[in-house]
Amino acid sequence: MNSVIETILNHRSIRKYEDKPLSEEQIQTIVESAQAASTSSYIQAYSIIGVKDKETKRKLAQLAGNQPYVETNGHFFVFCADFHRHDVIAEMEKKDLSTALESTEQFMVAIIDVALAAQNATLAAESMGLGACYIGGLRNELEEVSKLLKLPHHVIPLFGLTVGHPAGITDKKPRLPFKHVYHEETYEPNDEQTKKELTAYNEEISAYYNERTNGKRQDTWTGQMAEMLSNPKRMYMKEFVEKQGFNKK
Amino acid sequence: MNSVIETILNHRSIRKYEDKPLSEEQIQTIVESAQAASTSSYIQAYSIIGVKDKETKRKLAQLAGNQPYVETNGHFFVFCADFHRHDVIAEMEKKDLSTALESTEQFMVAIIDVALAAQNATLAAESMGLGACYIGGLRNELEEVSKLLKLPHHVIPLFGLTVGHPAGITDKKPRLPFKHVYHEETYEPNDEQTKKELTAYNEEISAYYNERTNGKRQDTWTGQMAEMLSNPKRMYMKEFVEKQGFNKK
Repeated sequence: MNSVIETILNHRSIRKYEDKPLSEEQIQTIVESAQAASTSSYIQAYSIIGVKDKETKRKLAQLAGNQPYVETNGHFFVFCADFHRHDVIAEMEKKDLSTALESTEQFMVAIIDVALAAQNATLAAESMGLGACYIGGLRNELEEVSKLLKLPHHVIPLFGLTVGHPAGITDKKPRLPFKHVYHEETYEPNDEQTKKELTAYNEEISAYYNERTNGKRQDTWTGQMAEMLSNPKRMYMKEFVEKQGFNKK
Repeated sequence: MNSVIETILNHRSIRKYEDKPLSEEQIQTIVESAQAASTSSYIQAYSIIGVKDKETKRKLAQLAGNQPYVETNGHFFVFCADFHRHDVIAEMEKKDLSTALESTEQFMVAIIDVALAAQNATLAAESMGLGACYIGGLRNELEEVSKLLKLPHHVIPLFGLTVGHPAGITDKKPRLPFKHVYHEETYEPNDEQTKKELTAYNEEISAYYNERTNGKRQDTWTGQMAEMLSNPKRMYMKEFVEKQGFNKK
């Protein structure tokens, strides 16, 4: 196994950091790594905001659901889908690009672009001995986050990424079985088979929690998913992204 | 620079492959690497289809806009956003999860999950000396692609990924300037400054094309973007994803 695959397979979300900032060189390497990812038709539909300021981090931590590691880390990155610069291009090149830029297709393109870049950033950080954690909680209050970061129209934060010197190691949570995720030639669902596989996976997950909590937790994966998804969250999102000029047509 | 960052920075899309299949071990390492990526609240909202069959590849190549490397490669992966298994969970756990699963928020979650996994797959492949290329063209005809791969409701292919033994090396295309993509503390757009930076970037890009085509091409980046985006494509996407149960509310 080479060191790239080792780094990839060794990934775990780190939620506790030393209070020690990243160096400028580390920040630059992480952002340049992000930029090296593939981008759909060269569109480069993202911007990254780096937050060092303690007060801004504190506010972001509150907005993201009081996660302390959003406040205490080495650096906080906010990954944004960005078509603002393409609005500027429309002006420069005197062309109407609004139909494409407001389409669901380009909304998907921008999200994919951002996530590919972010995963490069994460792996670059991890390869330097740093830890990282994606912060989806940033989407709790995107209106407030956008104001705080002074984002223009046509830019939306998709998630945060805490990076820092780890102050504790987390366990890796077992993933869905390989055959459940990977299909050859065709998908062809077989729901009865799926249920059997999920039941077996539930047992694995229950044992995982049981062992790590001295029997206090025995959740199943399907139970966790059903609980989480029966309480829909961030239902303002459709209206919000449309207002910001995405996913309209 | 460590070998992870080296692999990341050395990325280029490979569009020509030897006609030599990946080994089963390579496929397994690539998929397991994909699965090791972070997943939003453990939701694991993706499936990956691996295509070896020549005839299926040929059809997919046609659907994706006649790209020959979709037909000739070591393996063709299709990365799908997948809430079908969460529909099965709803049945198992007897809960109504439809509002969450059909929301724009969970549509974004699924796309992010898929792309993080895919970028791990890409880097794992590249670290083994293989080349890779994302195939957004797969979104040209998603109805046909979905039929061909026998996808159930609540699964949509987001992109393909060709992987194989490189039969030619591509140049790295210069990315937007660091400062144009990375902002500290706040974004605070300054459109006049942006235009100056884009004009300078255009010169870099023109020189890049000029050098590589013996003066035949001198495109600017803003020109390319304006040309591409003034011809909106895949405008069926909003209706299609809604029909498949995504992005509805």
